[in-house]
Formats: sequence, structure tokens, C-alpha cells
Amino acid sequence: MMNVSRPAIHPVDALPVAPTAGAIDRPPVRMKDVQGMPGTTGGLILRLSQFVPALISVSVMVTTSDFRSATAFCCLVLAVSLQSLWSLSLFIIDAYALLVRRSLRNHSVVQCFTIGDGVTSTLTFAAASASAGITVLINDLGQCNVNHCTRFETATAMAFISWFAVSPSFILNFWSLATH
Amino acid sequence: MMNVSRPAIHPVDALPVAPTAGAIDRPPVRMKDVQGMPGTTGGLILRLSQFVPALISVSVMVTTSDFRSATAFCCLVLAVSLQSLWSLSLFIIDAYALLVRRSLRNHSVVQCFTIGDGVTSTLTFAAASASAGITVLINDLGQCNVNHCTRFETATAMAFISWFAVSPSFILNFWSLATH
Repeated sequence: MMNVSRPAIHPVDALPVAPTAGAIDRPPVRMKDVQGMPGTTGGLILRLSQFVPALISVSVMVTTSDFRSATAFCCLVLAVSLQSLWSLSLFIIDAYALLVRRSLRNHSVVQCFTIGDGVTSTLTFAAASASAGITVLINDLGQCNVNHCTRFETATAMAFISWFAVSPSFILNFWSLATH
Repeated sequence: MMNVSRPAIHPVDALPVAPTAGAIDRPPVRMKDVQGMPGTTGGLILRLSQFVPALISVSVMVTTSDFRSATAFCCLVLAVSLQSLWSLSLFIIDAYALLVRRSLRNHSVVQCFTIGDGVTSTLTFAAASASAGITVLINDLGQCNVNHCTRFETATAMAFISWFAVSPSFILNFWSLATH
């Protein structure tokens, strides 16, 4: 029998954890690594589902000839470009963290992610709402025959989808920051 | 000398807290009762600074003759009306809690406040952004002579101010929920 000094109370016999020879010592996965958080596969998928719609939104709007006629559409291009750059870089960071099995649960990292998600999602949401307001107005005035309504609608819808995908990232990061 | 049994280690002599005879036993103010949270004076002021701009925004827009011509302006009236009702009711709850010295730090109460603040601020922000998009468009097209640009701008600006005042409430409540 292993000579383990018995504690005064015996809830459970504490078995010494033998180091698994040869296995890479993966940092202990903390109970709180909820899927969707930085450095998880869920987080990777979330970043992708933010980046792809944002890229489509920018491409559709930029290739629409008269998008400059409305300030809101210019704001949409800027805000969603920022969103796609942000989501792409975080996608790369997440992928790297998964590859080298590194946890991203560092306080300043989570803080930076939270602020970044908060700012980009607010800008994307504002631009998408403004574009939606104008697109609906063009419809109301029956001027779709002289405007690219379908393209405006597609770009606006994609921007909302991208915003919708950033919200869980922001909430999870903010929650993780608060409970850190 | 009071006969206090001395602990094995003497960090500090624990003085027994004598109940203050006659003083109303105010629930212990927890370290975490940050000003701005429900049931604090700061919270009361925050709710007022949400309600007043929202009320001005709705009044200005509703008394503008042709506001129905744009869907976004109708959405603004609805969203900001909801915001002012929500902020007014929470102002009353806060005032009551302060009067009867009752803490509102109950988990389900904070949860309800967080969701309410989240939903109303998102709707207000969306409607304000859509209205801003249209107001700027009218300006861009030089059509302010046949539209009430100033009134649209005032209503939109007030809606943004109201949203700006709700954000701290949402963040404080969400943080309190996470750390509860």
C-alpha cells in the first residue's frame, strides 16, 4: 500500500496524480472554459461566423455603384470592414491558441477582447441600423426601380448577422472578465 | 476586560459589535453597492437621465407632422416610448427601495433589470441609428427646406442621450449578475 499520510478526516483518499510520461502537459482545462470563449473550438466557429457575413456585406456594398450617395452606407463599409478585420485577427489568435494548446484566460487579454468586441459590435449595429432605415425608406417611397434595393438589403442583412454573431462573444468575454 | 476567548493566533482582537439601540437596522450595505446600481441614489439619477431625454425625444417626434412618412421615425417613437416607460418604472422602484431602505440585490431582480436594460437599450439604439441615417440622408440631399430636419435631429439626439444613459445601468447590472 502506498504510504500516504492519512488526513484527520477521511472524505476521500487523495490519490497522488502520477505525471503521464511523454504526454504534453496541457495546461489544466478550467471548469469555466465554456465553448465560445477565446481559445476554444466554439470561439473559432463564432469568429468565422462573424467574419464571413461581414466580408460579404462589405463586398456587396462596395461593388454597388451609388453606395456613396448615402452617408450611412459609407459608415456601413467602414464599420463592417473594422468588424471583419477584428474577427479575422481573433480567429487567427484562437486558431494559434488551439494549436499550441495555450489558454487565453489571461485578465488583460480577456479585457482587450471584451472592449474590442463591444466597440466593433456597437459600430456594426449602428451602421446596420442606419442602413436599414434608409433601405426601408427607399422601399416606402417606391424608388427601388432607380436604386439597388436588393444589394442594399443584402449588405445590411449580412451586417446584422455579423453583429448577431459577435454578441455572444462580447457577453461571454464580459462575463469571464467579471467573474475572473 | 470582557471575557473574550483568545483565538490560537492573534491577528486582531475581534470586538463584538454591540447592536445600536434604537437605530433602524438598515440592511448591511455591501461593499459591492456601487453608486448607479439599483436602489442607490446614483441609480435614481441614472434612471432620471434616461427618462427625461426619452420623453423629449418622443414628444418632439410625435408633434412633427410628417414623422409617419419614414418607418424609422415610427420605430423611434415606439422604441423610445418603451424606453421611457421602462426607465420611469425603474425610477419609481429605486425611489421606493431608497425610501424603505431595502436592498434590490436579489438575483432574479438583477436578472430582470439586466434583461430589461439590454432589450430597451438595444431597441433605442437601433431606432436612433436608423433615424440618424435618414436625417443625415435628408441633409445630404439638401431637402431640409421641405422637411423638419431640426426636429428630426433633436429627437434623434435625445434618443442617443437616453441610450447613452442606459448603458451604465446595463453594464453595472450585468456585472452584478455575473459576480453574484
